[in-house]
Amino acid sequence: MGADRRTDILRAAARVIARRGVRGLRVSEVAAEAGISTALVYYHFKDRAGILHRTLEFISDRAERYTGGHPGQGSREDNPRQALERSLLLEFQDRPEVRENSTAWGELQATAVFDPELREALAGARLIWLRRLTDALGRIHPASPASARTLGAERLTATLEGLSTRWLSGLLRLEHARELMREAIAVEVAQLERRTAVAL
Amino acid sequence: MGADRRTDILRAAARVIARRGVRGLRVSEVAAEAGISTALVYYHFKDRAGILHRTLEFISDRAERYTGGHPGQGSREDNPRQALERSLLLEFQDRPEVRENSTAWGELQATAVFDPELREALAGARLIWLRRLTDALGRIHPASPASARTLGAERLTATLEGLSTRWLSGLLRLEHARELMREAIAVEVAQLERRTAVAL
Repeated sequence: MGADRRTDILRAAARVIARRGVRGLRVSEVAAEAGISTALVYYHFKDRAGILHRTLEFISDRAERYTGGHPGQGSREDNPRQALERSLLLEFQDRPEVRENSTAWGELQATAVFDPELREALAGARLIWLRRLTDALGRIHPASPASARTLGAERLTATLEGLSTRWLSGLLRLEHARELMREAIAVEVAQLERRTAVAL
Repeated sequence: MGADRRTDILRAAARVIARRGVRGLRVSEVAAEAGISTALVYYHFKDRAGILHRTLEFISDRAERYTGGHPGQGSREDNPRQALERSLLLEFQDRPEVRENSTAWGELQATAVFDPELREALAGARLIWLRRLTDALGRIHPASPASARTLGAERLTATLEGLSTRWLSGLLRLEHARELMREAIAVEVAQLERRTAVAL
């Protein structure tokens, strides 16, 4: 019961953030969207910062779900390279849930520039994502230096977010964004190959 | 006189946007920052949308100045590759002017997701930037296919913006952001080389 209600609130918060942004967002708006009282929102989450923190985790978990869990642990037929590609390309889908999730995530990232409170939450969610990608790159080239994987993963997340913002604001068509992302992965895998050859 | 006053207003607008964002920004705030009347701001710019449009161009021109003009047309000693690297790395500098400019640019990009009015202005500024980078890649590998240059330029801008957001919100140290960007250029130049070899 408690967990369901909490999830309802987080789902409502993600929806509101995707619709109108996070700046100046009031707890009462989240409550109205969830169809409950503001007091009840405060009962479940200490304050506005607490809601934003948990919403970020909620969005991050949801993205992990629709991109098929950990990259590199996809369906049996996938090799590690295909699994990574499939997972990252699933961030670009013309489905309301995906658009909403990506919009809210991008907005929370952009807001962290102005809102130090958000940064700690963001740093945590980012680290989990980076680790998943670093692991996925390790499955593609197990002999690659760890530092090369980390740099590659860091760049893939930055590129993905840059492309995502352009797609969501209508500056890039979906298919073009996917093409750019697909090649970004190819380019980083090639770089990892070079770094592995040097290290061996 | 008129031009100076206009520049004063745009400089003030960039400052306000970098400090508190663009959502809910009122013309009166820009006027107060510029130390003039709101009526005078409206005299020089038709409306809020007009101010944002011109501020975006102002920010874009300013970035072109502190990154040393067109990449590939740097100091005499630079070869085209070094010139591109120098130009893109100058987007990451711990100087108030650069931080302010990058913060305002990133904020305008992020806001375009929610504000269709901004998109047209953004599309124009982005196209100019993309063309500069496409040309710079062409100077590095003149025999490369035009499509490969365009894709590379598009990805470099997306990666740069993704890294910039992380740097400005304190999630990446300046030196690390620069290292990631430096290698992003290396990776894209290597890709262009492959595509050129295939095309020849």
